[in-house]
This record gives sequence, structure tokens and C-alpha cells, in this order.
Amino acid sequence: MRTLTSYLLGAWQPAAGEPSATLVNPATEEPLAVVHRAQDLDKAVAYGRDVGGPGLRALTFKQRGELLSALSKLLYSNREELLDLAMVSGGCTRGDAKFDVDGAMGVLAAYAQVAEELGEQPWILDDDPASILRTSKIRVQHVSLPRHGLAIHINAFNFPAWGMIGKAAVALLAGMPVLSKPATSTCLLAHRIAELIVEANVLPAGAFQFLAGSAGDLLDHVGPQDVIAFTGSAAVGAKIRGHRAVLANNVRVNIEADSLNAVVFGPDLEQGTELFDLAIRDAVTELTQKTGQKCTATRRILVPEGLLDTVREVLAERLGERAAKTGDPADKGVKMGPLATAQQLADARAGIKALEADAKIVRGNPERAEFEGVEAGKGFFLEPILLEASAEAAANPASAFHRIEVFGPVATLLPYDGGVEAAAAIIRAGEGSLVSTVYSDDREFTGAAIAALAPHLGRLVINDEKNARGAFSPGCVFPQGNHGGPGRAGCGAELGGTFGLDLYTQRTAIQGGASQLARVLGKRKSAN
Amino acid sequence: MRTLTSYLLGAWQPAAGEPSATLVNPATEEPLAVVHRAQDLDKAVAYGRDVGGPGLRALTFKQRGELLSALSKLLYSNREELLDLAMVSGGCTRGDAKFDVDGAMGVLAAYAQVAEELGEQPWILDDDPASILRTSKIRVQHVSLPRHGLAIHINAFNFPAWGMIGKAAVALLAGMPVLSKPATSTCLLAHRIAELIVEANVLPAGAFQFLAGSAGDLLDHVGPQDVIAFTGSAAVGAKIRGHRAVLANNVRVNIEADSLNAVVFGPDLEQGTELFDLAIRDAVTELTQKTGQKCTATRRILVPEGLLDTVREVLAERLGERAAKTGDPADKGVKMGPLATAQQLADARAGIKALEADAKIVRGNPERAEFEGVEAGKGFFLEPILLEASAEAAANPASAFHRIEVFGPVATLLPYDGGVEAAAAIIRAGEGSLVSTVYSDDREFTGAAIAALAPHLGRLVINDEKNARGAFSPGCVFPQGNHGGPGRAGCGAELGGTFGLDLYTQRTAIQGGASQLARVLGKRKSAN
Repeated sequence: MRTLTSYLLGAWQPAAGEPSATLVNPATEEPLAVVHRAQDLDKAVAYGRDVGGPGLRALTFKQRGELLSALSKLLYSNREELLDLAMVSGGCTRGDAKFDVDGAMGVLAAYAQVAEELGEQPWILDDDPASILRTSKIRVQHVSLPRHGLAIHINAFNFPAWGMIGKAAVALLAGMPVLSKPATSTCLLAHRIAELIVEANVLPAGAFQFLAGSAGDLLDHVGPQDVIAFTGSAAVGAKIRGHRAVLANNVRVNIEADSLNAVVFGPDLEQGTELFDLAIRDAVTELTQKTGQKCTATRRILVPEGLLDTVREVLAERLGERAAKTGDPADKGVKMGPLATAQQLADARAGIKALEADAKIVRGNPERAEFEGVEAGKGFFLEPILLEASAEAAANPASAFHRIEVFGPVATLLPYDGGVEAAAAIIRAGEGSLVSTVYSDDREFTGAAIAALAPHLGRLVINDEKNARGAFSPGCVFPQGNHGGPGRAGCGAELGGTFGLDLYTQRTAIQGGASQLARVLGKRKSAN
Repeated sequence: MRTLTSYLLGAWQPAAGEPSATLVNPATEEPLAVVHRAQDLDKAVAYGRDVGGPGLRALTFKQRGELLSALSKLLYSNREELLDLAMVSGGCTRGDAKFDVDGAMGVLAAYAQVAEELGEQPWILDDDPASILRTSKIRVQHVSLPRHGLAIHINAFNFPAWGMIGKAAVALLAGMPVLSKPATSTCLLAHRIAELIVEANVLPAGAFQFLAGSAGDLLDHVGPQDVIAFTGSAAVGAKIRGHRAVLANNVRVNIEADSLNAVVFGPDLEQGTELFDLAIRDAVTELTQKTGQKCTATRRILVPEGLLDTVREVLAERLGERAAKTGDPADKGVKMGPLATAQQLADARAGIKALEADAKIVRGNPERAEFEGVEAGKGFFLEPILLEASAEAAANPASAFHRIEVFGPVATLLPYDGGVEAAAAIIRAGEGSLVSTVYSDDREFTGAAIAALAPHLGRLVINDEKNARGAFSPGCVFPQGNHGGPGRAGCGAELGGTFGLDLYTQRTAIQGGASQLARVLGKRKSAN
């Protein structure tokens, strides 16, 4: 049994008093580690700001990019250990573990590359100088500089590696020190990564702190230059946004929360095409990868009424194959592991019950108790569950599947008439999502779908026959694309290449004489 | 006496029941109008979203830009009437009135020009397509589309024309319908502009609604695609951000609130230069224009210790001249009018008392009761007040002048040692401001000031000897430059050319095959 504590104020904190939590292997329920709470969070916040901030800002973007490369190499050279930890502590198959750990390296590499384009100036030049009056030589030009506060990252349990490192990569490149709090239940992996970072000693003092266990009174200490980036439930998100100190100091808050992601099978989609195969393959991936515990996982599958029988049949068969290979990821034949915690399992089962008010289960048994390689009744397992609604229920914005995100291998088939308007109405009923996907070769349908759907989404994947073979499943978040969505999804925006830096920088208009601006601010390296 | 009501749901609402407020001329206290509250705000919100939104989105950016040009012409052809209204209802001199009314036209004209660059596509292409993996043909490209909600604008009393029209111009160009609520005390001018807009009938139905009087239960009806842009006090701003429906729906909120704007007289500044004259001229303008009731007005004046006596003397003399010409703006010789309301005067006097805990008055009498062209004791007048702090008090972040914004013709001289670090520490004590200004010919000082100050500011004006003659006073907000600041200033961002559209649009990553993206999304017109 390991003992997990926090790395704050430049030191691993002692494990004082009783542990606040015990972590278990979600497949076997075997205890893995205990977690101890930290004290003096006010000092940790000040240390990040006052020591970490100046240390990072003394470096150029390029130098900070080199730090990211070093972190990427560090993870790579410890990859096998990290994958094993993800599997034993997160219920991950080896594939799931790679998705998390390699994803973390991917963000580091991508932002190391962004750094190359940002040059040696202390600021990013956001645009070219603009005239403010035709007759005047006075110009205005926007620059972005790192905020002088602390980036507080509060992450979800599903991606202990990618969540922590993905957020940290962007903040560190921007020039903001990080205090990272992982979700407790799966923090063993995040803790090990924190240990590696501390041991490697590549970051400036105070640039990275790690908070194990509860957030305690952390938010009481936020100030006007701090940034909070949270990934998790809508309820906790609203608590953070409404926190007294956050409101009093107008702290910048970014939230990624619930999302009822939908995919749209286009009206022209036909069995026997590569595009149809992609649509089915993606649906299976999004239901079962990470046991459906991805904020970007597909929850609603819109199918033209005429294709519904076919899709149901093919999907049920494929999911049945996965169901047969659900069990302990330590078992090599297993394709899907358990949910992360007993609570997640209980919530998912309750969620399915709620969905059944407006849809019926067409595949899967939420109460199944026997799984591959584990003692019956042990572990937090749920096999893939496919539901289906009537066209009428699908069109009703009050239906449960438009409101309730079941965070597991669960999705609902929703028939629609094949028109963009009907699809858009169904997607809008989700009130803002992280991602949606269209499978169609009809360019008009796809164009109209972009106009109608995009304002409700952070990302929209468009697939056609030509690109079907090389396409990525929609739940895969790439650092080059925006991650975040309006409304229910939290109204946040992370990643997305250089756009991701906006969260951690202040954009300031610099106003002055044309020649003076050119001399003082320097030249713009690349137009974005 | 006029009767002011709301324009909602495509009609001027009846003046039912008792009026909720009476507006007076702040110079004479003569009643001007009564205001009636509106009902059915839930329906107005839905009408904006469901009628105004689709109507605006059916137009291209270019067509919406033409609407702005039409509004600009409309204001221009009624300019004299609007200036007169501003003077009588807002305590404005003719110069103040022009600043407000012409400023409104300026934003319309600037955003009509922005429209020209945005092309005919329904979306803005935010960047070029980016590769997501070296070996893949899949790309990601960001587009921005208007949000499918209502833009709720809640404006401050100080700029009834610019506040309302400046916000509306950006939202309308972005493609979002507007519901605009002016501050009640000065809403006579905003109401007249709304009348002109309605009469001219240039906007699509539902694109513009006007709410007179209290906001009532307006915020109870906000949804996930709505945007709230508020200008006013920090206390009300925090209430809006913390409102139950705003938190529950993750409504996008933009706030411009209190700001303790500071200017920095550089260590090299010398009397007898054009730069010195500019610094003094700007200080006088910022204290007295709009009677100091600008969110961008200078509240703290940082002066190198060696220059303090000179600056105090020159500034006191110039302010004395203005004090002698403070009175009823209807009087042609008057250079500064009253504050907007009795409450503003009481608040300003109380604020000066609070400042006196940490600074002493070196010019002006807050209790002066006789002014030009008005009966003694009538009107809400306050003459220019200049305070001065010790170097020790200036360096103390707890001092009142770093925390309390006195919204009137009031500023405090703060001595500092002439170094960037000392200046930055003082400016940081304001915890986030809209604008700051540096007067220096020392390029190293200016460059270091940008790096140290910009993260705490929305805009930074840099002035040197060469550009002194053509420079604009820092409180003048141009539509091309960002307006908004971190922390105390609300953590908002408005205007700033195309950046201003971000508030009203959703940025969405579109992911697909390289050739597919190019075909469906079209070509990028201009790189910004």
C-alpha cells in the first residue's frame, strides 16, 4: 500500500493524521494506496504565484517549450510503469491506458511545437497594428502576456495523466505556474507522474505543485490574476463559479462539465460503405473505450428512421462481442474494464433507470454480475448498454436522454427524419455539448449541419466516404482542436493550439505611435 | 414630462400603473421624465432568441455591417437632438455629449468596416487548417458562428448612447439579437435612440429590444446560448455572475466594473516638453471629462518624487481653472457639469472621505455648494478634487486609493522612485484595471513597463515626445482596442476589432479530411 501526499511549497508534505481516502483496484477492489490531506493551502497558492510565476516568466516561450519536450521525454521513458499503473488503478485496458498516457505526451509535444512559433519576445503579438482614426499616426495592437497568478487545475477521475498534463502543458507554456489537484479515486497515476516531475527537477521552483485529496479551502485563497480550470460535474462546476472568492475577485474560470454528445448518421448513409463501417466502429469505440467514461463519449446516436433496424442490429452484435470480453484488464483477452468506483457504478445504474423512462434497452443487462477474470460480484462492472427511443420521444427536449449524462458504456439510438432541422433540434435539446459528428457524403447536408450545430458545440467532426478509412473516432481530443462546449458542457475552451493559451494570458491593447509600437513591441513572427 | 416605456416583443409597451422612477436634470433638479416598468420579460427573451436570432442569422456579415452603417447615419441625422438630450439629462457639457454620441457612431462605423473583412460565409474562419498527426490527412480548423441566444446588455449611467450602441453594434454584427437595458437615471437619451431605431425600421424584427426601468426577473430566463454583457459596479457584477440561472446554464457573462486606472509619469519626464504638457493635459481631461464619471478615468497619478512639486502645482492650477467653470452645462462658458444623480454625489463625497484616511486633499473643496449658472445648493455638483499620498502610503497595497473608486472628478497623486518595479507594484495594488498610461521617452522603461503592467490591464497607452502632439487621452476608448480588464475591472473584454465578436460567437473546431474542409468551409479571406 502506497501513501500518497501532496507536493507543495517545494516539498512532499508529511502524511499527518489519518488518511482521508483509500484507493482500490476497480476490477478486484484490492486496496492500492491511502491518501493524506494537505494543510496550508494559502501558502501553496502564494508560493506558486510568487516563486513559480517569476521563474516561468523569466524564460521565453521557446525555453518553456523545451520544458514541455523534457516532460514528454520523461513520460516516455517511464511509459510502461505508467501504463501498468493506469490499468491497475483506473480499470483501464492497455488500450485505455495508452489513450490517457500517450495523450498526455501528445499534448506536450503539440505545445512544444506551438512554442516554436511564438518567438523570443515576452509577449505574443495577437494582431497587426490598427489605425484608430484615418488622420492619426496613433495605432493599437494587441499583445498577450501570462497572467501573474496561479493556474489551479481540478481534474476529473477519468484521465489522471492526460487531464493533469494536458492542462499543465498549456499553462506552463503560457507562463503560469500550476497547482494540480487530481480526482482522488484515480490519483495514483497522477501522483506517480508528479513524483517523476519532481525527481527530474526540470521545472523552475514553484512552477508545479500537486495537491492530493480534498481541495479543502483552496478556493478561499484565489485572487484577481489566478485562473481555475475545472473538469468534472456540472454541480461542482456551478459551485466553483459561484464561490465567494471567485466572484469577489472576478477570477477567470474555465469549466468542462456534462455533455450529451450526439452523432448524426446522415440521410445518405448506407450499409456496405466505408462510411457506414466508420460510423459503427466509432459508436462501439465511444461506448466502450475507457468503459464509456469520457466527457467526449457519444451518448446519443441519431439515425434516419429507415436505417434504424440495420444500425440497431449491427451495433447490438458488435457491443455483444465487447460485452463478452468485459472484465479485469489484467486479463489479456479483456476489451473493456470496470467503471472507476462503486459510486460511478451506482450512478450509472441509476442513470440508466432514469433513461428508461423515455427509452427502452435494446441490448445489455445493467445488473449483470459476472465478468471475465474476476470473482462474481467483485469490481465495478457494467456491460455495454444500448437504448432506443421513439421518434416522438427523440424530438421531445424534456426526454431524459437529452438531460442525463450516464457516465459509462451507455448510449441511446434516436430516430430522426434525415433532415438537418430535425437533427439540429435534437442536438440543441442537449443544451450545449463538447463534440458532435456527422457521417454523410452529402456536402449540402454537412454544410447546413455546420451552420446549425456548431454554435452548440466545441468541436464538430465531419466524415465522408473518402476520408472514412483514416478518420479518428470523435471522442479523441487532439491538442490542435478546441476542447470545451457551451451551456451544459460548461462554456469552456481549452487546447485548440494557440487559442488554448488565451485562458492563461491577458490580452492587452497597446496604444501608441506607429513607429513607437513597432520599436517597442517588435515584429509579428507568424500570422495565425 | 415624457413617459418612458420599454420596446419589447415588437411593440412599445403601455405605461401601466405608477411610474417606477422620475428622471431629473442633474444641474437643476428639474424633472424630465417618468419611467414605467415592463412585464413579461420571459416572453421578450424568447422573442429575441426565436424571432430576432433567425432574422439576423439569415443575413451575411456584410449585410449586418450595412445595418450598422444605416444606424450610424440615423444617429448622425439626429445628432443635434441627441446632444441636447445628453446635456439636459446627463449633466454633460456639449463636449461630453459629443464624446458619448459621436463615440456611438464611431463604434458603428468601425464595426461596419470590420464587416467588410468577414466575407459572405455564415461563419468566420478563425485560423488555417492544422494537421493533427503527421501521417494523417485529417485536419482541424476553427470557425466562429453567432450563438443562438439573446445578448442581454445592462449598461451604466455614464454613457447612455455609447454604452448601448457600442455593445449593440458588436452583437448585431456577430449575429446576435439584443435586449438593451440602460441605467435608469440617464435613460432618456438611450430611450430616444431606441425610438429612432424603431421608427427607422432598419433592423430585422426582434433584433433589438429596449428595457426601461428595473431589470426585474430578466435574469431568471437566461439560457445556455445567451450572453450577458454588463457595465457597472463590482457589487452588481458579482450578483449577475452568481445568479442561480446564470450558474445553472453556464451563461456567458462579460463584466466591466470598477477600475482604479493609473498613469505613470516616467522617470525622464521634464517640464517644458510636449510630453509633459500631454501628461498634464490628459490628467485634466481624465479628471474633468464627463465630470470624471468614466470607467476609464484616471484615479491614480504616479509621479517621480523629484517631479512631484511641479506636477502638483501645474495640475492644481489647471484644475482650478476648471473648478471656476463648473456649473450648468446649459451655460456656454461651463467646462464641467454636475454628477449624474444625488446618489452619485453622496457616494463621491463619502469616497473622498475614505481616501482622506490615506491621502490629503491638495486642491478642491468637496463641500462647495455654489456653481456657475445654478441656484446655490441645487444640482449634484462636485468640483475637481486632487489628493496626494506619501510615498509610504502609495506603496501600501491596503491604502484606500488602491481599493476605492471615487466615480467623479477625483484623483490622487502618488510619488514613486521612478523605477518600473515600484510603478508596477503600485499599479498591481489596484488588482486589475481597464487602462494605464506611460509617459516616457525611455524605450527601456516603456518596454519593461509593458511586460510588468499589461497583465493587470485591458489597455496600455504609451506616449513619447515624438507622438505627444497627436496622442489621445487614455480614457478615450477606441473600437479597435480591447476594452475590459482583469480582476477588479471585471475580467471582461469588449471591442478590440474582430476580438470583440468573440463574446457573441461560439468557436468550434471542425475536424475532417483536408480536401473536405476546404470544400465545405471555404477559403479564409484575411489572416488576422
